[in-house]
Amino acid sequence: MTKSQVHIQDDFWNSYSELVRQTVIPYQWEALNDRIEGAEPSYAIRNFRIAAGLEDGEFGGMVFQDSDLAKWLEAVGHSLRHHPDPELEKLADEAIDLIGLAQQENGYLNTYFTVKEPGRQWTNLHEAHELYCAGHFIEAAVAYYEGTGKRKLLDIVCKLADLIDGVFGTNPGQIRGYCGHQEIELALVKLYQVTGEERYLHLSRYFIDERGSEPNYFIEEWERRGRTSHWVPGTTSTPNPEYNQCHLPVREQSIAVGHSVRAVYMYTAMADLALLTGDAKLREACERLWANTTGKQMYITGGIGSTHNGEAFTFDYDLPNDTVYAETCASIGLIFWARRMLRLEAKSEYADVMERALYNNVLGSMSKDGKHFFYVNPLEVWPEASAKNPDKRHVKPVRQKWFGCSCCPPNVARLLSSLNEYIYDVSNEGATVYAHLFIGSETTFERAGVQVTLRQRSELPRDGRVEFTVSLQEQTENAAFELALRVPNWFQSVRPQLIINGQTVLNYRMDNGYAKIERNWADGDIVEWLLPLEAKLIAAHPHIRAAAGKAAIQLGPFVYCVEEADNGAPLASLSLFENSNLSAHFDPQLLGGCVVVEGDGQAAADSEWPEGQAYRPLAKQARPIRFKAIPYYLWGNREPGEMNVWLRC
Amino acid sequence: MTKSQVHIQDDFWNSYSELVRQTVIPYQWEALNDRIEGAEPSYAIRNFRIAAGLEDGEFGGMVFQDSDLAKWLEAVGHSLRHHPDPELEKLADEAIDLIGLAQQENGYLNTYFTVKEPGRQWTNLHEAHELYCAGHFIEAAVAYYEGTGKRKLLDIVCKLADLIDGVFGTNPGQIRGYCGHQEIELALVKLYQVTGEERYLHLSRYFIDERGSEPNYFIEEWERRGRTSHWVPGTTSTPNPEYNQCHLPVREQSIAVGHSVRAVYMYTAMADLALLTGDAKLREACERLWANTTGKQMYITGGIGSTHNGEAFTFDYDLPNDTVYAETCASIGLIFWARRMLRLEAKSEYADVMERALYNNVLGSMSKDGKHFFYVNPLEVWPEASAKNPDKRHVKPVRQKWFGCSCCPPNVARLLSSLNEYIYDVSNEGATVYAHLFIGSETTFERAGVQVTLRQRSELPRDGRVEFTVSLQEQTENAAFELALRVPNWFQSVRPQLIINGQTVLNYRMDNGYAKIERNWADGDIVEWLLPLEAKLIAAHPHIRAAAGKAAIQLGPFVYCVEEADNGAPLASLSLFENSNLSAHFDPQLLGGCVVVEGDGQAAADSEWPEGQAYRPLAKQARPIRFKAIPYYLWGNREPGEMNVWLRC
Repeated sequence: MTKSQVHIQDDFWNSYSELVRQTVIPYQWEALNDRIEGAEPSYAIRNFRIAAGLEDGEFGGMVFQDSDLAKWLEAVGHSLRHHPDPELEKLADEAIDLIGLAQQENGYLNTYFTVKEPGRQWTNLHEAHELYCAGHFIEAAVAYYEGTGKRKLLDIVCKLADLIDGVFGTNPGQIRGYCGHQEIELALVKLYQVTGEERYLHLSRYFIDERGSEPNYFIEEWERRGRTSHWVPGTTSTPNPEYNQCHLPVREQSIAVGHSVRAVYMYTAMADLALLTGDAKLREACERLWANTTGKQMYITGGIGSTHNGEAFTFDYDLPNDTVYAETCASIGLIFWARRMLRLEAKSEYADVMERALYNNVLGSMSKDGKHFFYVNPLEVWPEASAKNPDKRHVKPVRQKWFGCSCCPPNVARLLSSLNEYIYDVSNEGATVYAHLFIGSETTFERAGVQVTLRQRSELPRDGRVEFTVSLQEQTENAAFELALRVPNWFQSVRPQLIINGQTVLNYRMDNGYAKIERNWADGDIVEWLLPLEAKLIAAHPHIRAAAGKAAIQLGPFVYCVEEADNGAPLASLSLFENSNLSAHFDPQLLGGCVVVEGDGQAAADSEWPEGQAYRPLAKQARPIRFKAIPYYLWGNREPGEMNVWLRC
Repeated sequence: MTKSQVHIQDDFWNSYSELVRQTVIPYQWEALNDRIEGAEPSYAIRNFRIAAGLEDGEFGGMVFQDSDLAKWLEAVGHSLRHHPDPELEKLADEAIDLIGLAQQENGYLNTYFTVKEPGRQWTNLHEAHELYCAGHFIEAAVAYYEGTGKRKLLDIVCKLADLIDGVFGTNPGQIRGYCGHQEIELALVKLYQVTGEERYLHLSRYFIDERGSEPNYFIEEWERRGRTSHWVPGTTSTPNPEYNQCHLPVREQSIAVGHSVRAVYMYTAMADLALLTGDAKLREACERLWANTTGKQMYITGGIGSTHNGEAFTFDYDLPNDTVYAETCASIGLIFWARRMLRLEAKSEYADVMERALYNNVLGSMSKDGKHFFYVNPLEVWPEASAKNPDKRHVKPVRQKWFGCSCCPPNVARLLSSLNEYIYDVSNEGATVYAHLFIGSETTFERAGVQVTLRQRSELPRDGRVEFTVSLQEQTENAAFELALRVPNWFQSVRPQLIINGQTVLNYRMDNGYAKIERNWADGDIVEWLLPLEAKLIAAHPHIRAAAGKAAIQLGPFVYCVEEADNGAPLASLSLFENSNLSAHFDPQLLGGCVVVEGDGQAAADSEWPEGQAYRPLAKQARPIRFKAIPYYLWGNREPGEMNVWLRC
C-alpha cells in the first residue's frame, strides 16, 4: 500500500468529527479526571498520579483502567493531525509527562501493578490486561507521533515494548505466554510500521503464533495462582480457552467464539501479519473467520456478540434481538478487521461490512450530544423489560453518561477521529486508487512522480450521488491510474451509472465488487458515481430464528428502526406489507434533520380485547397504518420508548 | 365445604397414578438414598441418619434438602389412601422412625441446623428454609395420617409446630419473623383442619399478617448476621423484599412479584385463611393477585415465572417463550391456589386455570417413563441455543434425571397422587355438587341423610363427552341436590349440550361458569355433558410481545406444540394460515397414543438462499405444508429437537 494523506470534508461526518473534537474529547478528559457529576468515577488520571508518586491513595477502577487514558490520547493524536489545537495538545503533553513519571526504570508501565499489586507483574496474563494496556499505549503513541511529530510517548512505549520483548518469548527464562485480552498484537504492528523496528513485528507474531498451543497457558497459570481469579473471591473453575480464543492455534480457527472484542482485535492483527509476512495459512484463517463472523454471526446493524454472558459470540445464526449484546467496541473491532482485510484483498464485501458497522451499530452508540453512549446496541427494546426483566438488564433504553468499565466511549472517539484512514487505499505505487467509503474527502498521493489529488463529494445520507474530481500537480497534464469505485451491496440494480466529464461510461470493468476505470486522467476530470438511495425491505437468512417472518428496512447503508415516539406501542402489534410502498423524505425538523422512511402496514386492532384475559380464539383484526421509520443511528434520542429493527412482514 | 370421598377411575389419569405409584415413588426413594447412577446425589436420607446419630458424616445437599423426603412421604400418604401397599408403607414407616430419631428433645426438626450449624437455628429465616421444611413435614404428616390412619408423623409435627408456635409471634421474647420461603402457612391450615387445634390456624394467620410489615424483618436479620448470605461468600447487597413477597403487607398486594413458587404458596394460604376466617381484605387481595397472575403473567401452558433470574415473575405481559422459566413447582402451586379460590367461590375461571396448568405445564414436566423431569417448561426450544447460548442454559431440551435442587419431581408426585381432591366440591351439606374437572372418578357424599355416589366417566383427551351416573344408597328413592357442571373456557359455542336420561335439557341455569341442574335425583340417573373437542387457533393479548403475530393450537384443555421430529427445522420457518383447516385424529402409534392435530401452513423456501449471506432484499417464497402438532404434555419424548408452541400466523 502507498501512503496517502486523507482529509475529510463532508457535511455529515464533519458534524461528528467536530462533536468528537469539541465535545467528546473534552468531556472524556473531564471523565478521566472524575469531574463528571453523576457519572461513575474513572480514577484513570488519579491512578497515574499515585503511580508517579504525586499523590497518595489507592488504585481505583478496573484493572485495565489505564487503557481509557491511552484511548483518549490516541483520539487526541488523530484529532490534532487534522485540527491543530494548542490547548488540547498542552493537556495531552501534560498527560504524557505524567505517564512518563509513572513508568518504572525498566520500562514497565501499568498503574494497577505499580500501585496495588507490586511484585505481581505478569502473574495473571489471563485476566489482568497488562499487555492489553501496553497495546493501547502503543497505539496512542503512534497516533500522537503521527498527529504532532512528538516522540516522547513513542519513546516511552518503545521502552515498554522492549521490556516486553525481553520478558516474553520462547527462549529459556522467558515467559511463554500471551495476553488474555488481545490488543498488543495489532499495536505492535503499528509500532513496527512507524519505527521500522522488525523486533516489534516479530513480537506480535510470537503472540499470535503462541496462542492456542498446548498445554494451555492460562490453565497452567491459573493452577500456579492457586486456581484463583482476579474477579471473584475463592477458587474458580477452569478457565474456558474459547473465551480468549486460545482453544486452538489461530491458524486452525474457523468459527468466531468467545469474547467478541478480544476476537476481532486478534483477527485484525492476524490480517496485518498475513499481509506483512505473506503468511498464507494466517490469511486463510482470516478468510474463514470472516465468512463465519459476517455471514453467520453478525446483526444487520453490524453488531456482533449475541450474549451478555461473557460479551460473547454464541453460535451460527443465533442473533436474538432483545437479549443481544452487540457491544460498541466489538463493532469498532470489526471495522478494524475489515480495514485490514481490504488491504489483504480489495473486495467490496469487506468495505460493505465496515460501512454497515460504522453507519449503524457504531454511530448509533453515541447520542447526538456526544456525551452519552450505549455499550450494548439492541435491535429491539422494551424499556419496561430492561427495567424489570433481569435477562434484559444489560439492554439500556437510554444512553449512559459513562461506565465503570468505560471501554466504548473512548473507542468511538478514536475511531471517528481517524475515520480518514478508512476511505481509500492506494496500491501499486499509485496505479490503483480504491474508494471504499463514500465520505466527502480529499486524498493526495503520488503517481509516477506526479502528485494527484482526488476530491470526493458525497451527499450521504440524503442522496447516493458521489462525485470525484481529479486535480494534478501544477503544470502536469496527465496521470495514468486506475480508479476503483466500490459497488456497495445495498445497490440493487444491475450496475451503477458512471459519468465521466458529463458522459456516461458503460464499459467499465468490475473486479471483486469494484468498478475499475483505467484512464489517463487530466486535471479537472469529474467522475460521477450514481448510487440512488432506495428504501428496501431486507430479509434475514431463514436460519436466523429471531428474524423469521420479519423484515428490516434499509436505505443505502442505513438500517432503519421504528420507535414508539412515531408509531405508538406495542410496536409488536405492527406489521409491514411485503409491498409496503416505502417512501423516503428528508425531515429537517426531526432529530436534527434526517431521512425518514414511511410505509404501509397494519396494526392489530386490540380495542376489542377483553380486559384481564390473556388468551382467546384467534380472530385477526387489523387497521391499516402508515408507519414511520428513522435511521437506527438516531434511535433513543427522544423520550425513552420501544424500538424495533425487525418488523413482522 | 362438605367432606367427600373421591376415587379416580380414568384411563388417562390411571396411567399417571400408576406411574407415580409404581415408578416415580420407588425411583424417588432410590434418589433420596443416593442410589441413582449418574444423577446428582440427594443426601436426604443420609442427612437424617447423621442427625439421628446413626451415621457419621457431613450434611449434604441444599439447606432445604429435608423437604424432598417430606414431599416423598406426602406422595406416599396420598398413594396409600387409594392403593394400600404394605411394602411401601413399611419403607415409609421406617423413614418416619428415622425422622423421629432426628427430632430434637424440644421438637426441633431440621437436619441442616442439627448437623451443620447447631446453635444457629432461626437466625437466617430469610434464606435457610427451616419453616419451609417444617411446613413440608406438616403436609406429609397430614397426608400420611389421612392415608394410613397412623399418627406417629402427625405427633412429630405437632410437637414441631408447638415449638414454632412458642418461638414465633408478637409476644415479648418471641421472634417476630416469618419464613423466606412461604409454605408453613398453608401447611398449618391443613394441620388445623386435621387436628382441630385453633392455635395452628392462628399461627398461620400470624405469619401471613406479619409479612411485609415495617421495618422489614429480612433486612434487619441480614444486618444482624453481618450482611452475609447463606449462598455466597462475603457481604451481600440488601435483600430485595419483593423476591419473598414481603415488600408490602399481603392485604395490600395486587401484583404478583418475586420468586413465583413462594408467591403462589403464599396466595394459597391467603385463600385458605380468607375462607376459614371470613377475612374480606384477604379475599380481595387474593382476587386482585389472581387477576394479575392469570390475566397478565401466565403462559398459555399454565406456566408462571418469566425469568430464570430469581425464578421469578417479571411484569405484566412479559412472557418470553425462549428465556422463560415456568417452573414445574410454580404451576403446581398455581393449582394449589386455584383449588382454594374455587372453595372461596365456585367460578369456572379458577378451574380453567387449574386444568390448564395441570394438563400442560405440570403433565409435560414428567417424561413418559416417570424418571425424568423438567424444572423449566419452555414454550420454544432450540437445543443448540440451550447448549451454546448461556442466556438459555436453564432451558433444557431433554428432561433430567434428578436435580441438585430437586423440588420439582416430588412435587409432581404429591400432586398427581392427590389429584382426586381437585375434581369436586360438595357445598352446603350436599346441596350443590360441583364438578370442576373432567376426570373419570367416583365421589361419595351425604345429602340429607342419604349417601349419594356420583360416577363420572370422561374420555379426555380423546373425546369431550362426559357422563355422570347417580347412585343412591340402597332403598333410597330420591335425593334432591344441585349438580354444577363446569363450562370450560375452551368450549367455544353458545352452551354445551346437556342430556339427562337420554333427553336433552335446554333450560339449565348458568352461574359463574357452571351449568346448574337442580333435581330430585333418582338412582341410576344419567347425565351426559357434551363438550366437543375442537382444535382451535388461539391468540394472545396484543401486549404479550412474544406472541404477537402468532397463534397457538389448543384442543380442549390441551395446548399443542410442533416438534422438529414431525416438522423439520428450523420451526421458525413455518407459519400457519389463519384458516388452517385443523383436523385432529388419534394416532395409537405416536408417543403411546395421542391426539394429533394437523393443519395447513407454509414454510419459507430457503433453498435459494446464497451460502454465507446473512441478509438480502426480501423476496418471500414459501411452499405449502401440512404441519403436525402434538400435545404439549408429550413434547421432548423423542430425539432432542426444536419445539414451538406459538407459531407465526
